[in-house]
Amino acid sequence: MPIHSEILTNPKADRVRRIADLARPKGRDKAGRFLVEGPQAVREAVAWTPGAIRDLYVAVEEEPDAWVVANPVLEAIVDASQQADSPIYVHLATPEVLDRISKDAQGILAVVDMGAVAADPGAVAVGDAPFVAACYEVRDPGNAGTVIRAADAAGCDAVALVGDCVDPLNPKVVRATAGSLFHLPVLRMEADGFVDWAHGHGMTVVAADVHGADGNPPEPLPALLEDQALVRGGKAVLFGNEAHGLGPAMLAKADRVATIPIYGKAESLNLATSAAVMLMGMAAAAHR
Amino acid sequence: MPIHSEILTNPKADRVRRIADLARPKGRDKAGRFLVEGPQAVREAVAWTPGAIRDLYVAVEEEPDAWVVANPVLEAIVDASQQADSPIYVHLATPEVLDRISKDAQGILAVVDMGAVAADPGAVAVGDAPFVAACYEVRDPGNAGTVIRAADAAGCDAVALVGDCVDPLNPKVVRATAGSLFHLPVLRMEADGFVDWAHGHGMTVVAADVHGADGNPPEPLPALLEDQALVRGGKAVLFGNEAHGLGPAMLAKADRVATIPIYGKAESLNLATSAAVMLMGMAAAAHR
Repeated sequence: MPIHSEILTNPKADRVRRIADLARPKGRDKAGRFLVEGPQAVREAVAWTPGAIRDLYVAVEEEPDAWVVANPVLEAIVDASQQADSPIYVHLATPEVLDRISKDAQGILAVVDMGAVAADPGAVAVGDAPFVAACYEVRDPGNAGTVIRAADAAGCDAVALVGDCVDPLNPKVVRATAGSLFHLPVLRMEADGFVDWAHGHGMTVVAADVHGADGNPPEPLPALLEDQALVRGGKAVLFGNEAHGLGPAMLAKADRVATIPIYGKAESLNLATSAAVMLMGMAAAAHR
Repeated sequence: MPIHSEILTNPKADRVRRIADLARPKGRDKAGRFLVEGPQAVREAVAWTPGAIRDLYVAVEEEPDAWVVANPVLEAIVDASQQADSPIYVHLATPEVLDRISKDAQGILAVVDMGAVAADPGAVAVGDAPFVAACYEVRDPGNAGTVIRAADAAGCDAVALVGDCVDPLNPKVVRATAGSLFHLPVLRMEADGFVDWAHGHGMTVVAADVHGADGNPPEPLPALLEDQALVRGGKAVLFGNEAHGLGPAMLAKADRVATIPIYGKAESLNLATSAAVMLMGMAAAAHR
């Protein structure tokens, strides 16, 4: 059974430092692996990409005559990890060791091969009439993660991170996806290539923007959702940077522009909330 | 002109400590005032509740022969504050002083009377067919603030914080509302009284819950939105605690239960995102 009997007790050990290093881009690039923190995300990684998990690190506590896994939630994940076709290596560690690696471990961490999620557009089949959520230059990890989670809930076939977006393997992004990172491909692509890629796969590019562009004014979302050809067809819904939106160049290339009507005094919704309202609205309209 | 010519330069001054204290519940209760941080929220406070603002604190920088307001964004807010019927007191401070009060000031802070927003249900007229967003035991400041912002965007008449919720005057809540705290009344009430209050004002209580209760199964949101009598009538949409949801007692008292269909592999949406999807969906359906 690949549960190591040795207990990791030294927060200053080299191994511990190397794992903690996966929280940083350099550490991830060097190792080709990334860090998944906390029971929710680790459970989903075990369920959906067990073959890509290199190691699990689980908190144990010392009892009078043995070390035991710290709580039943962690135990259930360890059990599931041993049901996989090729069982996952489990390392037991003191809470101090886990805490040294990540303040957000909540007792459990997984080290996962980068290849499991950071996919190349060319390597992913998005199918007929694909439904894609796209982020352009989205920088905040919480926003990117929440968009990935909303895209998953809406039944999207993929998420595209376009241009200079936050790294989807940043631990804060991974955590905000609540496991959705392991449910659908997250593609990275250059700004120049995105619209061609979407058109090449038969998608209408719908830009989320309050103002629109010359000759491309925004349509209110409820009106757009009445267009059954659009909502049932291939489509990529594109969300812009938190501060600067999509910018004129991206807007000019979009096929349609959609805006969420505001019925009160708020100026706008935030990015992640807007994305959820649009994506879930499209999904509901397509399933009508 | 109530712009004080004295520059606050001492981060250790008693006055600075007292303002910083407003970030804590005790400090707020003692002073009867709360802290509003950053340009976006302060701008909205100046626009919507100028009479309740005790003081503005604005960052200045030293130039060869004078102190000047640090940037044009701050200058515009200071200008607006002097257009109010009774102009607002503006204090100039070094960035170090503002930083000592709040790491999230971004150059500007307002001290506001608590009476301006923490309203008593009895004192607020919600009108005919009111639309209310309600949070039950919601604890995370970011969630509560984002729900208040989404409720504002959806055109809600009020937000009700029911039972043991986070304090809406917590600086993190204030910031997450992006000014919406000053756009609509935020009421606090006991769990026992909420349903009676809602019914007394002709509202149908719609609980957001995946499971529902015995005899009160969840209806998928898209089906619920087809019910024009519901969406155009008085309604309170109730969201539960992040970890424990609404619980059987609250669910049993609700008139309807609504759930957001999930089309992909995600287990759920997070609280703030769910609230935005439901509230904006209801608003769009009512305006159809």
